Amino acid sequence: MLYDITVPQFTKMLHNLKLILDKAEVFSADKKFEVDVLLNDRLAPNMFNLVRQVQIACDTAKLCASRLSGKDAPVNDDSEKTLADIKSRIQQTIGYLETFSAKDFEGAETKHISQPRWEGKYLTGKEYVIEHALPNLYFHITTTYAILRHNGVEVGKKDYLGEMPYKK
Amino acid sequence: MLYDITVPQFTKMLHNLKLILDKAEVFSADKKFEVDVLLNDRLAPNMFNLVRQVQIACDTAKLCASRLSGKDAPVNDDSEKTLADIKSRIQQTIGYLETFSAKDFEGAETKHISQPRWEGKYLTGKEYVIEHALPNLYFHITTTYAILRHNGVEVGKKDYLGEMPYKK
Repeated sequence: MLYDITVPQFTKMLHNLKLILDKAEVFSADKKFEVDVLLNDRLAPNMFNLVRQVQIACDTAKLCASRLSGKDAPVNDDSEKTLADIKSRIQQTIGYLETFSAKDFEGAETKHISQPRWEGKYLTGKEYVIEHALPNLYFHITTTYAILRHNGVEVGKKDYLGEMPYKK
Repeated sequence: MLYDITVPQFTKMLHNLKLILDKAEVFSADKKFEVDVLLNDRLAPNMFNLVRQVQIACDTAKLCASRLSGKDAPVNDDSEKTLADIKSRIQQTIGYLETFSAKDFEGAETKHISQPRWEGKYLTGKEYVIEHALPNLYFHITTTYAILRHNGVEVGKKDYLGEMPYKK
């Protein structure tokens, strides 16, 4: 189940994020300003700007899949500056997620997950997904959305949630 | 597993939300302004204000537990106005979540979940949790956080994520 609640949904959310950034691009063209203004904006002076929010969302998805499966993650130097750069970073992350299947996550629930800043402490894979990776991914995507919404970009919750697999 | 990824984590996040609102209260007292200014603020003129963000976060958690289990949910008239009101709404929601156990969610994964605005269409319980309830809950809590952060309230990602069950 850890695969089901991460990889396909992370992929969907990153796809939605890309479409939201497309709306930002259209908005900046309509209003005749450089889209970089939005990319460098933030909601408070001591908060990460939009580019960094997108980078962290991508890292959250990438590292979650990597840590749970034990597979190496691609290295990113976070040098993205333009809209094309961050869209390509998102696409690269989606491409990485597509290399996984449920089989890669066998035993992941009880796996010990750690990272340098946890100073030797660990979470189980299940705790890490539920209490860390998921809330973090949504935090950084929602914050990106909030920065754009605050600037007048016409995005709505439907853009954030994406298509629902409704059945009749 | 649907229980594990919803009820305990929703409870934790609502608890974190209450602590974040406490920080907003301290901030308004320090700066000598009415905390209602924050409660009525929003990031864009055609966006819900903070009070409504909290109400929707509570509803998302409440309705998710109710729909997956088939148990009645308490009715709320969304009349909250003050900080005490919305904190009490959060506490009531936490109290409702505490009435559930994993047993209430048996068979929930394949259950057909619907709501009036879906016009007769449905999602499976599993789809509903992963693609609707979870992203919605995090969206409205992060937006509440963003409104406060934008106003200078000293909250950080740790306040949003809450304590981690680190082990040595």
